[in-house]
Amino acid sequence: MVLLVRALIFDVFGTVVDWRSGVAREVESFCGARGLAVDGNAFADAWRAKYQPAMEAIRNGGRGYIALDVLHRENLDATVSEFGLAESIDAAARDDLNRAWEKLPPWPDSVAGLTALKSAYAIAPCSNGSIALMTWLAKYGGLPWDAILGAEVARAYKPQPAVYLASAAALGLAPEEVMMVAAHNGDLAAARATGLKTAFLPRPQEHGPGQTTDLEPGADWDVIASDLIELGRRMTA
Amino acid sequence: MVLLVRALIFDVFGTVVDWRSGVAREVESFCGARGLAVDGNAFADAWRAKYQPAMEAIRNGGRGYIALDVLHRENLDATVSEFGLAESIDAAARDDLNRAWEKLPPWPDSVAGLTALKSAYAIAPCSNGSIALMTWLAKYGGLPWDAILGAEVARAYKPQPAVYLASAAALGLAPEEVMMVAAHNGDLAAARATGLKTAFLPRPQEHGPGQTTDLEPGADWDVIASDLIELGRRMTA
Repeated sequence: MVLLVRALIFDVFGTVVDWRSGVAREVESFCGARGLAVDGNAFADAWRAKYQPAMEAIRNGGRGYIALDVLHRENLDATVSEFGLAESIDAAARDDLNRAWEKLPPWPDSVAGLTALKSAYAIAPCSNGSIALMTWLAKYGGLPWDAILGAEVARAYKPQPAVYLASAAALGLAPEEVMMVAAHNGDLAAARATGLKTAFLPRPQEHGPGQTTDLEPGADWDVIASDLIELGRRMTA
Repeated sequence: MVLLVRALIFDVFGTVVDWRSGVAREVESFCGARGLAVDGNAFADAWRAKYQPAMEAIRNGGRGYIALDVLHRENLDATVSEFGLAESIDAAARDDLNRAWEKLPPWPDSVAGLTALKSAYAIAPCSNGSIALMTWLAKYGGLPWDAILGAEVARAYKPQPAVYLASAAALGLAPEEVMMVAAHNGDLAAARATGLKTAFLPRPQEHGPGQTTDLEPGADWDVIASDLIELGRRMTA
């Protein structure tokens, strides 16, 4: 398998970066500077809760493809209202706050693991984030991607098969030459159904201390690792 | 300008890598291993001479967008025939030889210059090469791109305006926040017409010792540098 696989593509939110802590920190910093008291984690959870429903409207054909940055911005409007902040944060300030998603900390093992994997494979995000979002996020955290693939290249949202297939095709590779890496069993199940190889690693703090999902691999994924450093070690051994 | 520009996008063939020497070397190595004597530079020039006409059929609407890898492969068939090698190189071998375009040496200043620029800007190719070709070429030569933009993102070929505009848009930037870097005056004229900033550097050996084109800047480009190291120094000063 190591000889056959030529590229690894990655879920990013939760698998490579800690979106919850990052968004919470940005929200608290942003609100604090304006004299507003907000529970950053609660705000991050509420904002993120609107993520799947927003994409679902596109997956089911009700809307054409719209980049995630725009969906995040729409969802921010709703979240700001829920938190009673609609009068306190104007549109321009919301545009700034929306960039919280470009400033998410990598998990401690992410940069080292990706750097090791890059020495032997092409590596790229296969995220629902846009090319812009993935590029600026990589600049922020030092993620050493070779290319930016995923939703915008396919103009579709995971777990639709087109996203995995378009990402492999954009590298000139067959599906079985590409391994999808994720901390989410559902993402891997969709990738496997399109013919990709799969690697799971748990991120038990993605949703905070009370997380109940994706604590364990849900199937016999091709590789199961504890983190990206271990994945790097095993895939370059 | 340094404060306004947030990304630099680059022509690649000729500006960042030495396609002629690289293709010539691959052709001579490939043919030599098969006992065939071929002038690698002449073969490279003949192969490259079919590049603009092949893209023109797509620019003028006669064909839909087709990735450059496919055009290179078609042009290789014609070149092989011109050199009397049609009986000597079968289709599978031609598929291998077509990957010569993934193994082109960077100019001596390219990696250092790009690395310096990457510290202050997002950097990406804005080439007529495909995402796959640009990704594997970067792996080969150590080109530290943040993202892969250009023709495939736009599904059009330079100098069509869509390629420059789609590359800026893919980064979430306005045209004036992006600088096009090229050794070709025509590429820069097209980029400037779409609102991008422009930087010229000469590559007087791109076409070999007899080169007569693009030896000098042809307009008052925003920056004129001797090579990518100087561009890096000036843009990060």
